[in-house]
Amino acid sequence: VTTSKRRETFRLYYWPGIQGRGEFIRLALEEAGASYVDVARLPKKDGGGVAPMMALLGGEGTHLRPFAPPILTVGKLVVAQTANILHVIAPRLGLVPADEALRIAAHQYQLTVTDLVSEVHDAHHPISTALYYEDQKREAKLRAKNFVASRMPKFLGYFESVLAENNKSKGRFAIGARLSYVDLSLFQVIEGLRYAFPKGLARIAADVPRLLALHDHVASRPRLVAYLSSKRRIPFNEDGVFRHYPALDP
Amino acid sequence: VTTSKRRETFRLYYWPGIQGRGEFIRLALEEAGASYVDVARLPKKDGGGVAPMMALLGGEGTHLRPFAPPILTVGKLVVAQTANILHVIAPRLGLVPADEALRIAAHQYQLTVTDLVSEVHDAHHPISTALYYEDQKREAKLRAKNFVASRMPKFLGYFESVLAENNKSKGRFAIGARLSYVDLSLFQVIEGLRYAFPKGLARIAADVPRLLALHDHVASRPRLVAYLSSKRRIPFNEDGVFRHYPALDP
Repeated sequence: VTTSKRRETFRLYYWPGIQGRGEFIRLALEEAGASYVDVARLPKKDGGGVAPMMALLGGEGTHLRPFAPPILTVGKLVVAQTANILHVIAPRLGLVPADEALRIAAHQYQLTVTDLVSEVHDAHHPISTALYYEDQKREAKLRAKNFVASRMPKFLGYFESVLAENNKSKGRFAIGARLSYVDLSLFQVIEGLRYAFPKGLARIAADVPRLLALHDHVASRPRLVAYLSSKRRIPFNEDGVFRHYPALDP
Repeated sequence: VTTSKRRETFRLYYWPGIQGRGEFIRLALEEAGASYVDVARLPKKDGGGVAPMMALLGGEGTHLRPFAPPILTVGKLVVAQTANILHVIAPRLGLVPADEALRIAAHQYQLTVTDLVSEVHDAHHPISTALYYEDQKREAKLRAKNFVASRMPKFLGYFESVLAENNKSKGRFAIGARLSYVDLSLFQVIEGLRYAFPKGLARIAADVPRLLALHDHVASRPRLVAYLSSKRRIPFNEDGVFRHYPALDP
């Protein structure tokens, strides 16, 4: 990572009212101390709002049209899909080992986080994203019950193994000897699950000590302490991916 | 792509009875004329069956444990997650442009295919993968109705735009001037949707002429003609991702 690359300005395009999938990008940019603009959260008079994001989704300014936010641009590069964005920017941010096999494995871990996040979303929206939660509450109860009892322990148990088997960090980090973007994402997963399913997560907490220790370590890193207590960190809410509906966490 | 690299032997680990997510890898290997072993489809006496795959999932032989199949190994490299595998092997197979921005965009397209495939799966399993379709048939009808009416047109319309906007191929291919692994995956998407939702797809066929032309082109490529008519191509069935349940395609 060169200092000059760190001075590049990243432009993040994501929904302004939620953490959502964009938060995985925000955490990496914040931990790296990168220069970035959270475009949709800027005032309209400063070129902000969701209009520039919708223009990108409509194919303006790129012949490589993205399907959905988050979208990140740096220089002429336009990148979409959360895990793809992290895969591309992590070397510039110093948040992934340089070794190619490890970088590929980090991406596999992140894509598994993506799968987990998708299942978290579908726990409250099992039928359709076009319907309100209230209109699919009965089905959400069924899906969330299965998610909490079966899928959440499977995913978290897997990541606990990943930590345990990473001898280079003595079980502290997911890959290599130092913190990577995967660790930041695992922090966000624990943070989100603790918000959405506090009772369900508490029941399996004893099985994932390394994940919880990683969560606490990430929360204590100086740049993230500053970020998490700032207004840049949007609070969890019931418009995002991680939602707390007591009926889904009995 | 060097000839020596093409002579490497790839080992694919995937469920032996379904096309599933593994089929996206098989199509790339077949189109490239790569040397590969579909491990779980070999006889046990030749080191085949699902046992070697389960060993990898259990962390044997790698300190970078995958979460789920498909898994591909080449030399010492172990790669999991369908889109990640294609991203890694496509340069070796000559199935993606060398330009880095195009390679990143190809990966974004493939990750969007991944999202579509996940929604196809959940159309017949909206509540839980641990339950049979028959035990979530009522919910599957609701989700499939939404998928066919809203999500399928959205995804296919997006890829139709990707083709239309790729001036380098005059709308024939997704990225660059030549066939890439993304085109092979779009072929498989159309093939699968035509199997699973023939009536639903027929209703929107007129809106996606480039996608259907791409499908037909891929099906006519000599190596794929040979593959698709061989026993290596597993027929669609109701254990895979694309399933034909008439109740879900009214």
